[in-house]
Amino acid sequence: MPRYRLLVEYDGRPYAGWQRQAGQPSIQAAIEQAVLAFCGETVTIKGAGRTDAGVHASGQVAHVDLDRARSPETIRNALNAHLMAAGETVAILEAALAADDFDARFSARARHYRYTILNRRAPPALDRGRVWHVPKPLDAVAMDQAAARLVGHHDFTTFRAAQCQAKSPVKTLTRLAVTRRGDRIEIEASAPSFLHNQVRSMAGSLKKVGEGAWSADDLAGALAARDRSRCGPVAPPDGLCLEQVDYGG
Amino acid sequence: MPRYRLLVEYDGRPYAGWQRQAGQPSIQAAIEQAVLAFCGETVTIKGAGRTDAGVHASGQVAHVDLDRARSPETIRNALNAHLMAAGETVAILEAALAADDFDARFSARARHYRYTILNRRAPPALDRGRVWHVPKPLDAVAMDQAAARLVGHHDFTTFRAAQCQAKSPVKTLTRLAVTRRGDRIEIEASAPSFLHNQVRSMAGSLKKVGEGAWSADDLAGALAARDRSRCGPVAPPDGLCLEQVDYGG
Repeated sequence: MPRYRLLVEYDGRPYAGWQRQAGQPSIQAAIEQAVLAFCGETVTIKGAGRTDAGVHASGQVAHVDLDRARSPETIRNALNAHLMAAGETVAILEAALAADDFDARFSARARHYRYTILNRRAPPALDRGRVWHVPKPLDAVAMDQAAARLVGHHDFTTFRAAQCQAKSPVKTLTRLAVTRRGDRIEIEASAPSFLHNQVRSMAGSLKKVGEGAWSADDLAGALAARDRSRCGPVAPPDGLCLEQVDYGG
Repeated sequence: MPRYRLLVEYDGRPYAGWQRQAGQPSIQAAIEQAVLAFCGETVTIKGAGRTDAGVHASGQVAHVDLDRARSPETIRNALNAHLMAAGETVAILEAALAADDFDARFSARARHYRYTILNRRAPPALDRGRVWHVPKPLDAVAMDQAAARLVGHHDFTTFRAAQCQAKSPVKTLTRLAVTRRGDRIEIEASAPSFLHNQVRSMAGSLKKVGEGAWSADDLAGALAARDRSRCGPVAPPDGLCLEQVDYGG
């Protein structure tokens, strides 16, 4: 039973999230439907990151087992044809034969997310649904300096959603960088794995720093408190994009 | 009667084009409606570039005369509030008081467009409607070298739409550069003014060069022929964006 690895791009706006849910559109179900339409097989697809409603991906990774071997190019092209025909905003960028023990979720060594804030008075017209609009000017340098206080091996309880299913709130954040590019502020976050809502929780707290409401010490104190009530308002899903997942070998 | 200059961003997908047309949505009408909702004045707005259906702008410029003076910030914020409330994909990035003789169209000294091709097998999911999807690999270096043959003062009849209303087909193209950025090919075109469909006609012809169907000499020959039938297939509006308009002073 050959296993295939898929590199997936999607606009998350029309979906209740990556994961299949009864009665709601999901990216997982969209791809599973495309597989069914393509080869008649009912499959379960597994993704590296279970992105929330409205969150996007330019480099999500998933795996799927098929009963019968087919060329990766055929799989990619056929799935894309069925996804487009169904009006889904999901595309398969690459398909490749994978080892039997490859698991998109558990084999992943690092995940890279980008959170984009549009920091200008005017609301977004071209990038609506793709950015968080913050009209008040933010200090990206202060945000970047404060972000460094979150990097490392910590108990991230403060930045974890109540419904998070991870066994432990302790995670290793390997990178958290804030950069201004014109009227955009980009927050890049990398870790072996993240807690539920961790990036959006950190982005919302960094915005407090950017507007001057919090100092870097306030942010570090919120982390040290291990108290969800100390988190800033969680940033909306619009600005979040799963850009890359790394695997060994 | 104070005149105001507006810097305008829009996603062109929902519109029949910049220009007001009976019974069809247009960017011009959307802004005129917002002015009416804001201050009760029925105005006619004039834009620097009359973009076609589905063409976008990140830096369109327009001017409008109001009966009563108001602060530029108030105008920008109020128009944006009314545009958003009406569900328009149009935003006013800046408003400024302009000289009485400022004319968004006739005072413009240069217009800068960008045409984006997504050059990969998979269709766009994140940027649907914002790029031209060309699955076959294109040679961007060959496109850039050929593009140089179109720069200068020429009769652009070959690259002009049949319905073009310009008095003369002679225009000065000051820049036409083709650059690959990952799986994107970006065509940047600058001129004091363009003929109707000129950028999309050039982009479609450059694609012929990129896929190896045309040489640079073929492109130069098409220009020299001054014959519309020698143009490559006109590129779709999706990839086109009016980025900047320059004025003197």
